[in-house]
Amino acid sequence: MTTIELLRGANAAKRQMAAASTQCKNEALRAMAAALRQSAPAILEANALDMRAAQGKLRDVMLDRLALNEARIEAMARGLEDVAALPNPVGRELSRHARPNGLLIRKVAVPMGVVAIIYESRPNVTADAAALALKSGNVCVLRGGKEAYGSNRAISAALRAGLQQAGLPVQAVCLVEDTSRASAAELMAAVGLVDLLIPRGGEGLIRACVENAKVPCIQTGTGICHVYVDAAADLDMALSIIENAKASRPSVCNSEEVCLVHASVAEAFLPRLFARLGTERQAAGLQPIELRLCPRAAKYIQGTPAGTADFDTEFLDYILAVKVVDSLEAALEHIAAHGTGHSDAIVTGDETAAQAFVRDVDSAAVYVNASTRFTDGGEFGLGCEMGISTQKTHARGPMGLEELCSYKYVIQGAGQVR
Amino acid sequence: MTTIELLRGANAAKRQMAAASTQCKNEALRAMAAALRQSAPAILEANALDMRAAQGKLRDVMLDRLALNEARIEAMARGLEDVAALPNPVGRELSRHARPNGLLIRKVAVPMGVVAIIYESRPNVTADAAALALKSGNVCVLRGGKEAYGSNRAISAALRAGLQQAGLPVQAVCLVEDTSRASAAELMAAVGLVDLLIPRGGEGLIRACVENAKVPCIQTGTGICHVYVDAAADLDMALSIIENAKASRPSVCNSEEVCLVHASVAEAFLPRLFARLGTERQAAGLQPIELRLCPRAAKYIQGTPAGTADFDTEFLDYILAVKVVDSLEAALEHIAAHGTGHSDAIVTGDETAAQAFVRDVDSAAVYVNASTRFTDGGEFGLGCEMGISTQKTHARGPMGLEELCSYKYVIQGAGQVR
Repeated sequence: MTTIELLRGANAAKRQMAAASTQCKNEALRAMAAALRQSAPAILEANALDMRAAQGKLRDVMLDRLALNEARIEAMARGLEDVAALPNPVGRELSRHARPNGLLIRKVAVPMGVVAIIYESRPNVTADAAALALKSGNVCVLRGGKEAYGSNRAISAALRAGLQQAGLPVQAVCLVEDTSRASAAELMAAVGLVDLLIPRGGEGLIRACVENAKVPCIQTGTGICHVYVDAAADLDMALSIIENAKASRPSVCNSEEVCLVHASVAEAFLPRLFARLGTERQAAGLQPIELRLCPRAAKYIQGTPAGTADFDTEFLDYILAVKVVDSLEAALEHIAAHGTGHSDAIVTGDETAAQAFVRDVDSAAVYVNASTRFTDGGEFGLGCEMGISTQKTHARGPMGLEELCSYKYVIQGAGQVR
Repeated sequence: MTTIELLRGANAAKRQMAAASTQCKNEALRAMAAALRQSAPAILEANALDMRAAQGKLRDVMLDRLALNEARIEAMARGLEDVAALPNPVGRELSRHARPNGLLIRKVAVPMGVVAIIYESRPNVTADAAALALKSGNVCVLRGGKEAYGSNRAISAALRAGLQQAGLPVQAVCLVEDTSRASAAELMAAVGLVDLLIPRGGEGLIRACVENAKVPCIQTGTGICHVYVDAAADLDMALSIIENAKASRPSVCNSEEVCLVHASVAEAFLPRLFARLGTERQAAGLQPIELRLCPRAAKYIQGTPAGTADFDTEFLDYILAVKVVDSLEAALEHIAAHGTGHSDAIVTGDETAAQAFVRDVDSAAVYVNASTRFTDGGEFGLGCEMGISTQKTHARGPMGLEELCSYKYVIQGAGQVR
């Protein structure tokens, strides 16, 4: 089937999905989970073929992302069941007011329609994205990476069996057959057939979507996150937050890449940072953090001299750029110039400094005395996440079920004219 | 100044505008109104030159849009004062919840940043758009039509004088000097310098923005609005709604273009529609409506046979396409296939039919027993309007001050790590 034919089929399923009851959607999610478990042997077989074909072509970290096993399939099935337990976002009344002329104007949450997701090697995205799209009344069009196509086909076959069992159209979960760049370009250009496009993956994919998409697109991802240690910081707290933000999972977008330190505490703080991230981690058998230092920081501790690119790089690694700044204002200017609008934190005991930071940092999540690693749908209490938006329109920060909805105005009259 | 230089200046003013107090913004709006009144002679002089240059180049309707007089300047000044009276949308707390780990997560409305508006010949948009952008804490970059440049320059000079008086940066209102297509293209491509682009104008301009913009863009405008006369309609009410929706102001996007009539009432209703929109209007000295009829409607009344394009045309004129449908379902299918997602209405006394219509019509505003002409920021109680969005992401329907905002998450901790 061509991608355009598939999109037409997806659009034909929109109305039924938008009108589906909570109970029906939850039954489908549970049936999909059961079908995944039942299809585990077929899925693992398909995945083994994908893995064999990818040997020598993908880096080890990508191969690991591609690999499925019983536990990962069980995690996908549980994920579907978890989404069934979340509240239905469709039909919520967002506002209601009666006008002087008697019109009742209600603003009601509705599904977006057809949500297309372009992703890379992880086959579990197929089930995760389908679950969120279904619960929010959307039809999803999934375009995964070519190396995972066999696995994705096996997974989506199981998901469709579950849909069918619950009496929902199988077109609610569509897997794009063409995994070449051409199909990604078709999705980006499918005005009228794609209501929302969400790229999930590396920077290149996201930039290509944002720059080329003619359909509405959500920019997810890149996080150059800062932790600023203020003059009035509790230095023990700063160490603990920085170690967590940097080292608990360096490969994710909400991890810290840059530490800014107020000049007045640099002498006291930097040697402790050096010990905490270096020698103490080594002694504890943990991977130490490589520090890339501005010239002022290098006066107090040892490390790699920071190059010009180091304050504009999402390392996603055990590397931290460190810069000494003269003031809160200088920290704000640095973040404005080098941040990506994802997550930034201040560590301070000074309420005025905290307020200024919160007001002036233009990022999706701004933290006072907490780790940037909390920027996550689960941690925010959304129950799930389709990605983290770093744009300012539509959705910002973690996108849960509500962010996969639009709204419409419903106006009840009794013959009013203007 | 080049457009890029101007955008850099606009971005430099973002932080100050985002932090401006309600009082300061309101003072600025009132000072801008006073400056407009004071500058009326200079504005009228500039407008007279614009008008002279446009003679013979623009159609009469466009010349009328370009023309200013004392009353129109007074209306602009009043508009600024009206916006001062509206609540400040910035800083509203959209949600707040404490997590089990003690983090307090608040979702707070913040300005979008730099809002660029591309518009055509009406110089009053300069003041209207600036007022809404300022009240919502945004910086606005205004790119009006070349035929109105002199008028726009005089108006924006007055607005800037008001800003200065209130101690706000004059860069909060920037008028693009280059009025060629090149500057529109620059705004569409200015990733990182334009946070939101709003095209206000004809279909060609809007399509160009939606298809080419690399910056976030709101699709405004085109309205092929339907009124469906159900089998259970009160026919008197239907006549009154249709005459209002079609004839009260045919040139606007929320006016009706297509009337769908259930077959079971066609024989009773259509002759009355013919009389109401034709002979009765003529007798009252009003412009009659030309009816473009499907073959079934033509069995009951006289009119122009509808061509294939007539059900897909935004006439913006005293023309109404009329079609007989066999069922509510057929009406829904017609609207899904031919609507533009703007405003659609059902006239019915049947609650079940009304519910199905409201659920299944995928438009910004869905009406039961009321005229589509109410889709308007003022009529919806928003107090103002930057345009009517026909897209589903970010904002849908009339865009007021809240829709010119984004949000950020502000997280207060006490040293929490993950």
